Amino acid sequence: MGERAGLLESIEGPHDLKRLDVGDLPGLAAEIRDLLVGSVARTGGHLGPNLGVVELTIAIHRVFDSPRDKILWDTGHQAYVHKMLTGRAGAFGTLRQEGGLSGYPSQAESEHDVIENSHASTALSYADGLAKAFALRGEHDRTVVAVIGDGALTGGMAWEALNNIAAAKDLRLIIVVNDNGRSYSPTIGGLARHLSSLRMTRGYEDALEFVKESLGKVPVVGQPFYDTLHGVKKGLKDILAPQVMFEDLGLKYVGPIDGHDEQALEAALRKARGFGGPVIVHALTRKGQGYTPAENHDEDCFHSPGVFDPITGEERPKPHGWTNVFSDEMVKIGAARQDVVAITAAMLHPVGLAEFAEAYPDRVYDVGIAEQHALTSAAGLALGGLHPVVALYATFLNRAFDQLLMDVALHKLPVTVTLDRAGVTGEDGASHNGMWDLSILQVIPGLRIAVPRDAARLRELLAEAVEFSEGPTVVRFPKGAVPAEIEAVGNLGECDVLRAGDPDVLIISVGPMAEVCLEAASLLDAQGISATVVDPRWVKPLDEALVLAARAHKLVAVVEDNGRVGAVGDAVSRMLRDADVDVPVRGFGIPQRFLDHAKRPKILSQVGLTGQDLAREITEAVAKRSPVLEHHPSR
Amino acid sequence: MGERAGLLESIEGPHDLKRLDVGDLPGLAAEIRDLLVGSVARTGGHLGPNLGVVELTIAIHRVFDSPRDKILWDTGHQAYVHKMLTGRAGAFGTLRQEGGLSGYPSQAESEHDVIENSHASTALSYADGLAKAFALRGEHDRTVVAVIGDGALTGGMAWEALNNIAAAKDLRLIIVVNDNGRSYSPTIGGLARHLSSLRMTRGYEDALEFVKESLGKVPVVGQPFYDTLHGVKKGLKDILAPQVMFEDLGLKYVGPIDGHDEQALEAALRKARGFGGPVIVHALTRKGQGYTPAENHDEDCFHSPGVFDPITGEERPKPHGWTNVFSDEMVKIGAARQDVVAITAAMLHPVGLAEFAEAYPDRVYDVGIAEQHALTSAAGLALGGLHPVVALYATFLNRAFDQLLMDVALHKLPVTVTLDRAGVTGEDGASHNGMWDLSILQVIPGLRIAVPRDAARLRELLAEAVEFSEGPTVVRFPKGAVPAEIEAVGNLGECDVLRAGDPDVLIISVGPMAEVCLEAASLLDAQGISATVVDPRWVKPLDEALVLAARAHKLVAVVEDNGRVGAVGDAVSRMLRDADVDVPVRGFGIPQRFLDHAKRPKILSQVGLTGQDLAREITEAVAKRSPVLEHHPSR
Repeated sequence: MGERAGLLESIEGPHDLKRLDVGDLPGLAAEIRDLLVGSVARTGGHLGPNLGVVELTIAIHRVFDSPRDKILWDTGHQAYVHKMLTGRAGAFGTLRQEGGLSGYPSQAESEHDVIENSHASTALSYADGLAKAFALRGEHDRTVVAVIGDGALTGGMAWEALNNIAAAKDLRLIIVVNDNGRSYSPTIGGLARHLSSLRMTRGYEDALEFVKESLGKVPVVGQPFYDTLHGVKKGLKDILAPQVMFEDLGLKYVGPIDGHDEQALEAALRKARGFGGPVIVHALTRKGQGYTPAENHDEDCFHSPGVFDPITGEERPKPHGWTNVFSDEMVKIGAARQDVVAITAAMLHPVGLAEFAEAYPDRVYDVGIAEQHALTSAAGLALGGLHPVVALYATFLNRAFDQLLMDVALHKLPVTVTLDRAGVTGEDGASHNGMWDLSILQVIPGLRIAVPRDAARLRELLAEAVEFSEGPTVVRFPKGAVPAEIEAVGNLGECDVLRAGDPDVLIISVGPMAEVCLEAASLLDAQGISATVVDPRWVKPLDEALVLAARAHKLVAVVEDNGRVGAVGDAVSRMLRDADVDVPVRGFGIPQRFLDHAKRPKILSQVGLTGQDLAREITEAVAKRSPVLEHHPSR
Repeated sequence: MGERAGLLESIEGPHDLKRLDVGDLPGLAAEIRDLLVGSVARTGGHLGPNLGVVELTIAIHRVFDSPRDKILWDTGHQAYVHKMLTGRAGAFGTLRQEGGLSGYPSQAESEHDVIENSHASTALSYADGLAKAFALRGEHDRTVVAVIGDGALTGGMAWEALNNIAAAKDLRLIIVVNDNGRSYSPTIGGLARHLSSLRMTRGYEDALEFVKESLGKVPVVGQPFYDTLHGVKKGLKDILAPQVMFEDLGLKYVGPIDGHDEQALEAALRKARGFGGPVIVHALTRKGQGYTPAENHDEDCFHSPGVFDPITGEERPKPHGWTNVFSDEMVKIGAARQDVVAITAAMLHPVGLAEFAEAYPDRVYDVGIAEQHALTSAAGLALGGLHPVVALYATFLNRAFDQLLMDVALHKLPVTVTLDRAGVTGEDGASHNGMWDLSILQVIPGLRIAVPRDAARLRELLAEAVEFSEGPTVVRFPKGAVPAEIEAVGNLGECDVLRAGDPDVLIISVGPMAEVCLEAASLLDAQGISATVVDPRWVKPLDEALVLAARAHKLVAVVEDNGRVGAVGDAVSRMLRDADVDVPVRGFGIPQRFLDHAKRPKILSQVGLTGQDLAREITEAVAKRSPVLEHHPSR
């Protein structure tokens, strides 16, 4: 890539970028790519998407006037280059580290950042509101720019927003569709139809040339699930020929533009800005652009690698984690049960369904970034006599709460939902922690929830879930490596007793909290407080045997990797209250606030979910109720 | 309408319908309309939409073979005619009455019914799943028919489904777009553009004639909010010219068809069935068709009237209810605060924003049936310096939980959400009860929740909500008439003390439960148990003063009009546990199950939310803890 003049160092904000000569921009882009690769190789993070938007981000910041103009990224994982160009290149090595830069835009970091979260398909709605606010306040010189990936356009709320934006003729709102060349999926019905439509529009010749280069060849039919960004992208995103559709909606369309031709992008954006109403700028980019290992990476163009070697692109091998256990088990279940089908919302690989898809290609459905449809189409599949397993990240189930409640549970349909990345996830920050599901799912009538503590229990509970035919079940497990297996020493109804104790404290351990609960029990023992540790396995409904057990103890502690509010601790307390059992209950979980990014173990330690913290808190709670212990004077 | 042969009586199912001569069908349609009008005039219900689908429903049941073929209604409020034609005409007088027919399809009522709930935009997702299940099971002779209104197409999940359906070439799936002629909103940018597009397609001449008849004239620009079905319908639903857009998606299109020409509909449906893949049939219907008072009803064509006079169409005047208080107050707030804007999801009139819209037409946004966009565009408006008030029915907020959590609360944006129809609603059945919000909203960091007990408190708390600038607030109130005002007799922190008592029982009364709580307190008093009654006004966060108050009592009872799980009762209990206060807490609310339809007072009585029930339960709880009372031997 030749000599570097240290251009990036000289850029403290968009103002400096605007002053650069056009001739310097390719060098700047190369510097940015070097920093992206070198830095993400050490920290992990979203690489492929950011390599694809280097020129686009430069062009946007040269044409628009941030922060007066607002630039929104959907999702924020494509905002790394934006961070570098707004004064944060020097801090880039701290990305996703505790106290360092967030992996998403952050208002606390910069006045150029707007949307903090990372759930997809939201930017157009924010943009609609922001542009309407500017219009109403008479600030007619401000433009809102929303950059949205073709994948995010499959999410329903993006379409709700387009519907509204199209009706608002005077909004100064530019939608940049970042079409990253991985959306041309053979499942859509073939490239031919779309190319033939495009052929009748301006810009076709240029686009065709670029598409040919980017795409290499038409993807092989028969491998529908291995040739995409987040998974399969379908139908609506047949972005090669979107003009007609977007213009049907009343939106002005500019494109397609080569997303790696910075000058062409600038020209298109200036043209769009001059239009004065809502307009779509369609940029064709290539994910992983400029970094050969990413460009050649079949699965997802280094979408979000862990630590890797920047020269070879070789990733450090990941430990065998929860996702792998789920993946293996699904293949076995699929062999035994022809009626089991699987659904993913654009995350076939990350949720561990790739092996199932390979084994049973006609029994897996990738619905796009569309959790609502995932759940309600699962309801339809169940009505049709099948048993769907919907595999999601825990935080994204929030998008489909209403569908699980009204479309699945109201009809008592046998649908299994598995939630990966439940509990604290860490580096991805506030919006990725799966700390909500154990609370909001409590309200769903008839829903059963299992929380496995180790790999053996995940296999066992998943099997129980798909065997249950009278309603929906949820099985949730965390991010990362599976802990060592912990065998039960006894049973209490359907619960596993992990440690038998005298009648001082009953510790109800939810799923993978077993390890710290047992550690806490040992520490308590050393202080003369005896603890029983029970893993309920199914936390909804709770086994009535726990009421009897609670009666036999003087304090109940519930430990869970979820927000404290409304979760299992509250459910245990309610069950006891309803049974007129007044044994005090203490709940331990994640404090009910948005967590800053850091590594999972660090956060668990910060929020007090360690054996030592639990032992100390339980000791204090016992001490405060000292009359309770006065019958044990020997202690 | 001439002589009647009692045709409807002879129809016990679709089989009988198929045997009728074509010449009998107009007479049958007239009988159905008579029964619809006569019956709904007595029971209340959805009239306009059903008058509009008489011929469409006849045609569907003559062409398809239900229940082997599956017929899905989106939403189910347009399924009355379907009920009549599947053996339930005789029972129609019991509609929405306790023990009678549901106002929506119900699997318990008929093998012809599939979707039980009434949240919009779900049918295409169910249909996708059902059709995929049939395909996978080799049942290639079964067809799925989903009837969806043009309004429901504005919901994001309908588009998620279209995206998937378009990619599945072989599904036997027919989407009937019931385009009821009220969607041609001037806000869309004019009819001309769409007509000009349509002009290039087949069927235009027929359609134009019909549209001219139906529409009368182009709606007057400048009255954008009074000319629609549920409110404004925009952009995507410019259904007059959908061919290009639908066909862009890869969906076969048949239409437009006159939705009141039964034979034309049958022909179109047979053609669609013969195609063998997913196909859209576009039927133009007229809401309220055949009943003059409905046809001439400007607001919503008798969408969902209460009891009315079947001859004149005159509705029995409704009592001044919570919605009116909200409506009046919003107009006042709008006058005082130029930065307050309002958002509705296609329910301008029902949620009480029509007066605000009339007073401040440029400060109200109807986003379509799009709760997700409602919340996130509100976030955008707030980022732009405004204070949006999003007015929803409580049950529909479930659709936007993720957006309120991640898009609004994470950014600490000043957005007020008002929830009408919170708590038990009654006749609309399980999916309309607003019994979830007080639970799931508990988990949202920084969110404040107010529950007014009467009109004065609604005014007061709404004012406090829009004055709060550091994050979102929710104000929730029930369906129906406002109760008599109840003045505080004292204060406890920010809470209102409604009745001072000796230190026996502390009753925490949530919002409109005040009346029954005071009644319970009187009954308890007669039994020698003294009760303090406190209304916290803001139930999130709970005032710490309640901890002190609880300490001074021997039992705490929490009474709320919400599902018991995870709501205020659990929050009070948690607050006390966290403060190491072991006073027993009893929670009273709606049992956590789906409720059958009946009138609100009847359901409240069934679930034990009456003064007598509360007094009895509290007395029992006190008695079980009799040692607690042994210090009061005089009792």
